[in-house]
Amino acid sequence: MGDKLSPKEKCHLITRNLQEVLGEDKLMAILKERDLKVYWGTATTGKPHVAYFVPMSKIADFLKAGCEVTILFADLHAYLDNMKAPWELLELRTQYYENVIKAMLESIGVPLDKLRFIRGTDFQLSREYTLDVYRLSSLVTQHDAKKAGAEVVKQVEYPLLSGLLYPGLQALDEEYLKVDAQFGGVDQRKIFTFAEKYLPSLGYTKRLHLMNPMVPGLTGSKMSSSEEESKIDLLDRKEDVKKKLKKAFCEPGNVENNGVLSFIKHVLFPLKSEFVILRDAKWGGNKTYTAYDELEKDFAAEVVHPGDLKSSVEMALNKLLDPIREKFHTPELKKLTSAAYPDPSKAKASVKNSTKNSNPEDVVPSQLDIRVGKVISVEKDVETSSLVYIKKMRGVESQGMLLCASSVGEPRHVEPLDPPAGCRPPVTQQLASLGTYRGDPRAVSCPETADFRISEDGVAQWKQKSFMTKLGNVSCKTLKGGSIS
Amino acid sequence: MGDKLSPKEKCHLITRNLQEVLGEDKLMAILKERDLKVYWGTATTGKPHVAYFVPMSKIADFLKAGCEVTILFADLHAYLDNMKAPWELLELRTQYYENVIKAMLESIGVPLDKLRFIRGTDFQLSREYTLDVYRLSSLVTQHDAKKAGAEVVKQVEYPLLSGLLYPGLQALDEEYLKVDAQFGGVDQRKIFTFAEKYLPSLGYTKRLHLMNPMVPGLTGSKMSSSEEESKIDLLDRKEDVKKKLKKAFCEPGNVENNGVLSFIKHVLFPLKSEFVILRDAKWGGNKTYTAYDELEKDFAAEVVHPGDLKSSVEMALNKLLDPIREKFHTPELKKLTSAAYPDPSKAKASVKNSTKNSNPEDVVPSQLDIRVGKVISVEKDVETSSLVYIKKMRGVESQGMLLCASSVGEPRHVEPLDPPAGCRPPVTQQLASLGTYRGDPRAVSCPETADFRISEDGVAQWKQKSFMTKLGNVSCKTLKGGSIS
Repeated sequence: MGDKLSPKEKCHLITRNLQEVLGEDKLMAILKERDLKVYWGTATTGKPHVAYFVPMSKIADFLKAGCEVTILFADLHAYLDNMKAPWELLELRTQYYENVIKAMLESIGVPLDKLRFIRGTDFQLSREYTLDVYRLSSLVTQHDAKKAGAEVVKQVEYPLLSGLLYPGLQALDEEYLKVDAQFGGVDQRKIFTFAEKYLPSLGYTKRLHLMNPMVPGLTGSKMSSSEEESKIDLLDRKEDVKKKLKKAFCEPGNVENNGVLSFIKHVLFPLKSEFVILRDAKWGGNKTYTAYDELEKDFAAEVVHPGDLKSSVEMALNKLLDPIREKFHTPELKKLTSAAYPDPSKAKASVKNSTKNSNPEDVVPSQLDIRVGKVISVEKDVETSSLVYIKKMRGVESQGMLLCASSVGEPRHVEPLDPPAGCRPPVTQQLASLGTYRGDPRAVSCPETADFRISEDGVAQWKQKSFMTKLGNVSCKTLKGGSIS
Repeated sequence: MGDKLSPKEKCHLITRNLQEVLGEDKLMAILKERDLKVYWGTATTGKPHVAYFVPMSKIADFLKAGCEVTILFADLHAYLDNMKAPWELLELRTQYYENVIKAMLESIGVPLDKLRFIRGTDFQLSREYTLDVYRLSSLVTQHDAKKAGAEVVKQVEYPLLSGLLYPGLQALDEEYLKVDAQFGGVDQRKIFTFAEKYLPSLGYTKRLHLMNPMVPGLTGSKMSSSEEESKIDLLDRKEDVKKKLKKAFCEPGNVENNGVLSFIKHVLFPLKSEFVILRDAKWGGNKTYTAYDELEKDFAAEVVHPGDLKSSVEMALNKLLDPIREKFHTPELKKLTSAAYPDPSKAKASVKNSTKNSNPEDVVPSQLDIRVGKVISVEKDVETSSLVYIKKMRGVESQGMLLCASSVGEPRHVEPLDPPAGCRPPVTQQLASLGTYRGDPRAVSCPETADFRISEDGVAQWKQKSFMTKLGNVSCKTLKGGSIS
């Protein structure tokens, strides 16, 4: 397909809907000679959801423009970035990513034979690459490395050394993947300019950078677009898609921060160069838009109403998801999905499976590593959304979860448990781990069972047995009768 | 020899003259079971001088105590530490280090067959090691990495990323060299405690650390013990040894910061467990000390005088240097020496050799990359001692040398050349490189030729031709008639 297009047409396809292109003059020069080689990388951490259709649609554009596209599964980056995923899970998650991204691309009609898939660990641990990491580290100041990662690496009080290596690796990938350009969100801009600055100092060519705008999430409410539970998973059932879309922020006439409109603009419209608003005959019947701007104008003028917009998107989205759901209905991929992203509510069962001669009754507090600690800082986990961590001082990040009591009913009050008076870190009780994921307890949550409760006296209990330390009971004064998790 | 000693005697030999031992209890436990495995690392940068006899003497102790000793030539570290040595030279310098250290050990009677020599690049670029570097970087905070290197990594305004990696590599070396202990100067203390803190978090054993005190240089004056030209090179001629020792700070009765006494204590005395003060009969004749403290006491009491102390050390030192001089008198090692540490004054000749069909007359300013720059900070080069660099702002370290005028005769005044008024960076004249060391111009100095001079009008000239920029002449107002280098 790409071969029939002129360099100018290819350039248009490659750059449409992008927010910024660094090196656009070079892009035309390359396209006049040959097709562009471009790479997109994704760290294999959280479960990809429908927002991944946004970069996938650009990748479809690249392929339509004849580009040679490389998709990098950055498994080492995933590890480096605060060790979000333990190594044991990485392999499974990379497999999941590969399968799900292939399914997405097939679903939007992209021929896979024009794509190359590669894993970071396939080349980033080689002698040659490693030497370049050191060469780069001898040219890059700590200041520049920090600045480059500022928008991408998690910013914490005691940042890890890995965060400073991350930008350099991403720069070197351009050289080692032998591409002309790197594609990413505009949040990558500082890493991209870092790469443009430093690759030439290693004797390598400065690459082009293609940047997508930051597209609002399809289903976010205006205030909580990052809430994980609101995101539509690629394997969500139709009823879940409907439910989640219903909550999406989509004010009549308001085109700002409108994830539904953005999804049409960046995913659904580019697919077929048209979008159909499905509408009851009494409101004017269906309307086909062949230019996205027309649709946006009509929505701003309240000619198109949120309800119709959402149901039209729901229909189109389900058409995209159907082949993915079908593909993942096989026993192999079902198994891979649950292994790569174990359901927290089934953690109890997985403990059973991984512990011989045990039954669910064996999940006793003595199998958990419960300790008293000083809470230095607390943050929300972006992957599981509801958990809260203890962060140790002095830099070593705790992998613990904070045990909290929560009230029953809405609004839900949550409060950390109180250790006995005079109890100081470290350690009162501890033991073992939960099944296979001992490397990173964040991947597993505590078994959510009604057995963990705050008694009417305000004492934390498991099956009416109090949580004890050498200094007395663990308690929660205000949320009597609440659950613990 | 080690086999005949008791664990306690071995422990004494291993720890004598050390300033600090971390893990001494563990040391005895190991010695009761088996011999200790210990490693010492040295970055293959500057030319080793007589101060290297200090760690060599401890290594002799370790071997006498039956230890398995590994000497690590840290060629990768040498590169990381502000890229002191270009890669092209590293191989030659590592060869030089290996030869000279073997010669030193042979000279002090150490059997080489009990030693293992290894290079950093032999294992530090392996997949396994590299993955551990990343694992470590995901546990170590930037803060801790910086702190660990504070006394060893060069502290500059815009520190390089490599400086933060250095301590982690040194920690991992303990694991990859499969040793029980690391030996080094007490300036390594923060890196050693860093290793003790972090190796266990990777699942590796915490190692012992054996620390030598910081021994004052043999020939330093009190105020300038770091001056390179005062250091005694292992290949220095007898007359140079005499000349340099003459300048050594050695006040009658003063045992503080006395490099001559320290050299006896840490090198000459442990060799034979005695030291002979050679003295004219009229001053009491020779005196043999079998305890170092006695000698120190006598020196403090001015019973032993500086002149006699120095001439006794000169005699003993020359006995150590003789076999080294002899070994390095072969054509192969002569060639290696001059290739690994090219004589700055012979740079002209090396340009000749590396440029076909050229003669010395071809060394014209147009072959040099001479630019006008803004001096941000300036430092003395520890290797060549007399050169001064321009450091660029924004982190990319300049590899340039600052062109200075200097007066003829003593005291020697040095002053940077002045660009024409209104001249701003970057660049006025430039070109090419000097022979093979283009990667790091610091390894080569400008040809020191009488052709580069400040004219009597204060204009910088080469063969009476003025240094020109588009804006006028380069000048030096105060040092008229001086030379440029």
